[in-house]
Amino acid sequence: RELKTFLDDQLITDIAELIYELPDDAVEIINHLTFSRAAAAFRILEFPTQEDIIRALPAHKTAELMNELPPDDRTAFLEELPSQAVQELIKLLDPEERKVTLALLGYKENSVGRIMTPDYIAAKSHWSVAQVLNHIRMYGRDSETIDVIYIIDDDGKLLDDFRIREFLLVSQETMVQTLMDDRFVALHVNDDQEEAIQVFRLENRVALPVIDVHGVMLGIVTIDDILWIANEEHTEDIQKIGGTEALDEPYLDMPLMRLLKKRVGWLVILFIGEMLTASVMTYFEDEIAKAVVLALFIPLIISSGGNSGSQASTLIIQAMALGELTISDWWRVMRREILSGIMLGSVLGVIGFIRILVWNSFFHTYGNHTVLIGLTLGVSLIGVVLWGTLSGSMLPLILKRAGADPASSSAPFVATLVDVTGLLIYFSVAYIFLKGILL
Amino acid sequence: RELKTFLDDQLITDIAELIYELPDDAVEIINHLTFSRAAAAFRILEFPTQEDIIRALPAHKTAELMNELPPDDRTAFLEELPSQAVQELIKLLDPEERKVTLALLGYKENSVGRIMTPDYIAAKSHWSVAQVLNHIRMYGRDSETIDVIYIIDDDGKLLDDFRIREFLLVSQETMVQTLMDDRFVALHVNDDQEEAIQVFRLENRVALPVIDVHGVMLGIVTIDDILWIANEEHTEDIQKIGGTEALDEPYLDMPLMRLLKKRVGWLVILFIGEMLTASVMTYFEDEIAKAVVLALFIPLIISSGGNSGSQASTLIIQAMALGELTISDWWRVMRREILSGIMLGSVLGVIGFIRILVWNSFFHTYGNHTVLIGLTLGVSLIGVVLWGTLSGSMLPLILKRAGADPASSSAPFVATLVDVTGLLIYFSVAYIFLKGILL
Ligand SMILES: [Mg+2]
Ligand SMILES: [Mg+2]
Ligand SMILES: [Mg+2]
Ligand SMILES: [Mg+2]
Ligand SMILES: [Mg+2]
Ligand SMILES: [Mg+2]
Ligand SMILES: [Mg+2]
Ligand SMILES: [Mg+2]
Ligand SMILES: [Mg+2]
Ligand SMILES: [Mg+2]
Ligand SMILES: [Mg+2]
Ligand SMILES: [Mg+2]
Ligand SMILES: [Mg+2]
Repeated sequence: RELKTFLDDQLITDIAELIYELPDDAVEIINHLTFSRAAAAFRILEFPTQEDIIRALPAHKTAELMNELPPDDRTAFLEELPSQAVQELIKLLDPEERKVTLALLGYKENSVGRIMTPDYIAAKSHWSVAQVLNHIRMYGRDSETIDVIYIIDDDGKLLDDFRIREFLLVSQETMVQTLMDDRFVALHVNDDQEEAIQVFRLENRVALPVIDVHGVMLGIVTIDDILWIANEEHTEDIQKIGGTEALDEPYLDMPLMRLLKKRVGWLVILFIGEMLTASVMTYFEDEIAKAVVLALFIPLIISSGGNSGSQASTLIIQAMALGELTISDWWRVMRREILSGIMLGSVLGVIGFIRILVWNSFFHTYGNHTVLIGLTLGVSLIGVVLWGTLSGSMLPLILKRAGADPASSSAPFVATLVDVTGLLIYFSVAYIFLKGILL
Repeated sequence: RELKTFLDDQLITDIAELIYELPDDAVEIINHLTFSRAAAAFRILEFPTQEDIIRALPAHKTAELMNELPPDDRTAFLEELPSQAVQELIKLLDPEERKVTLALLGYKENSVGRIMTPDYIAAKSHWSVAQVLNHIRMYGRDSETIDVIYIIDDDGKLLDDFRIREFLLVSQETMVQTLMDDRFVALHVNDDQEEAIQVFRLENRVALPVIDVHGVMLGIVTIDDILWIANEEHTEDIQKIGGTEALDEPYLDMPLMRLLKKRVGWLVILFIGEMLTASVMTYFEDEIAKAVVLALFIPLIISSGGNSGSQASTLIIQAMALGELTISDWWRVMRREILSGIMLGSVLGVIGFIRILVWNSFFHTYGNHTVLIGLTLGVSLIGVVLWGTLSGSMLPLILKRAGADPASSSAPFVATLVDVTGLLIYFSVAYIFLKGILL
């Protein structure tokens, strides 16, 4: 068939793109690929498209595809599905693949166990290099990577790891034993996936072994999957910083109602928090009535607090995500942010003060009390910006301490906090400068 | 020496950590490592620490270290240094390494050329597998990876790529020619590094070849470096979304003045923009004087616009970063965000309206015009939230269109825009409902 010849000439990524462009022909396309190319294309598709394909595929094709999929990619697909669909699909697997899949799904979500694959190459320390290469020739086809070879003892305990180059560059008679340095880096099966990202960043490896508490090797995690995980984690962080729950689907593919559900929660919480500003304002209603001029600068004051707060919180969140900063550094952070807040606030305060003087000399807007009003604005800005940077930098640390995700809606949450307290700072400063004069 | 034996037992990452913990002994530690381990540790250190070490190391040691460093890591280090220091260090390199380094530094910043390494294995199509493996045995030691083998013709043009497993799993007499499928994925040397991340995400490869416009192979990029780049790009995005210039050093290591310089620029720009709120408020000063009750809800109104705007902008920024969304989708985005804005605004509007009725029934705060005031608040919220989501979603697309980085300070910038226009919406709505009654 022509379609078949055409598809055989395409790269896997082009096939994935073709499926996105012609969603109605997805099944047709998958049907015309060899098993292994179908699986390779399927594993890089977005989940919603994967789901559509599985729904539309006849049962025997689904079975072939599911059995062909590497175990880690299969786990990634299954963990997004409702549990009933998972049951159905697992029934289609060969006994061997079924066992593996159930084991992987047994590890808790977002743990290293969920992204590992049991398809790796293990050798014994008493083998020669020739034996290892023979072993690779026999069992390498099913392995996810042969770039790293693991040495295990008879109990399955991990002893060392080798890059394949180390075997290819020495003579075949060399004994593995003599090449071992007993140094290796391993992930623990119950570790968080986020920690695995950091380990991969520092280790120059394409795969890392996964061990249990007894040091027994259970599988490997490959760096290509880590690149996906890193991307997901960052997306989650950005969305949380922006004040949405993490979306689990591409923005455009998401049904509108589901998208709204992810957004409305935080908006309502922040709105209810922000209602406190109305209460604070009501408390100072008489002062505003006496000196309407005070009301004029309210948006300016609170937004400056919000901006400095969101700067501080995103800096700290990201520094923590990169592991540059831990909770124990809180005092160093606080000291820096107090200094930063005073200096940044002073810059804005001076600009604000000058602005009032300049405007007044042109438009005589502020009457006799220009300097006092200017001072009120300037000093309030220092206070509000200082408070913004301080709460913005401390909140992520406090969230982390409390076991929550530091990224969670930090920026808008800080803005809300600073709006309410910023008003209190502003009116207090106004009292000091304008009591008996305007108030 | 004892130190030497101790260090030989450590993992490279442990050595890096030791250097961070004992910065004063960094040189001592580096001096006691073999060349290759010193280079391996050096390449994973943060730039400021790398710089300190090079400054403190005697010239002959620096030369050894620089020559031992893989070309791509050397480029990454040199590109951070002032140009005079770069000159000095390049002089220390062997002629061969110098040529390579100058070539890599010749590509423009953030291009694929800057992260590639010329240390790869190339084979010819008329070779047998045995010849390839022999070639690897002879030249593999200097290659960054032997996991992928490239087939080039006599002009250096890339013809195909193989994973090493493909050679290990067939008989040694097989001719390379018969294994070729002429399908390969390559990066272009002048491509942006960010695009390379996307390609690596989709291709199941640990390295990708880099070609020039004629298809001639120039080097490879390895996935471990891509993981670093992805991290840097994400950090940059998060910092820009938070309204700071991208920091190029870890938060805690950065001198305070440099940190302030990265932050003060955007704060001042946003502050000056936000001054427009004072102008708008001055314009409506008489209305506020007549109906102080209007002032009470100003922070609530504008912050709701800001929150919905920052939600929308971060969602769109991230969807664009993941390639899920391009400028041509603007109309689909706009339609979604108009609907979202109306619905989210209605939710907040109803809550706000009810809040006013409830408060009034308890405290009689709002007098005879409670319902009208409630309607003013409710309808304004719909308008402001709609406008917030709309401008929040469109601004990143407009920035991208204009060739700017969509992440650049989007969230605070949207908040500022929405603060100013939100006031206009609020006072206009108030006019409609309260003209002749309170105003
Ligand atoms: Mg896999
Ligand atoms: Mg997952
Ligand atoms: Mg080892
Ligand atoms: Mg994998
Ligand atoms: Mg995968
Ligand atoms: Mg996270
Ligand atoms: Mg605000
Ligand atoms: Mg390198
Ligand atoms: Mg760079
Ligand atoms: Mg090929
Ligand atoms: Mg590299
Ligand atoms: Mg590197
Ligand atoms: Mg970017």
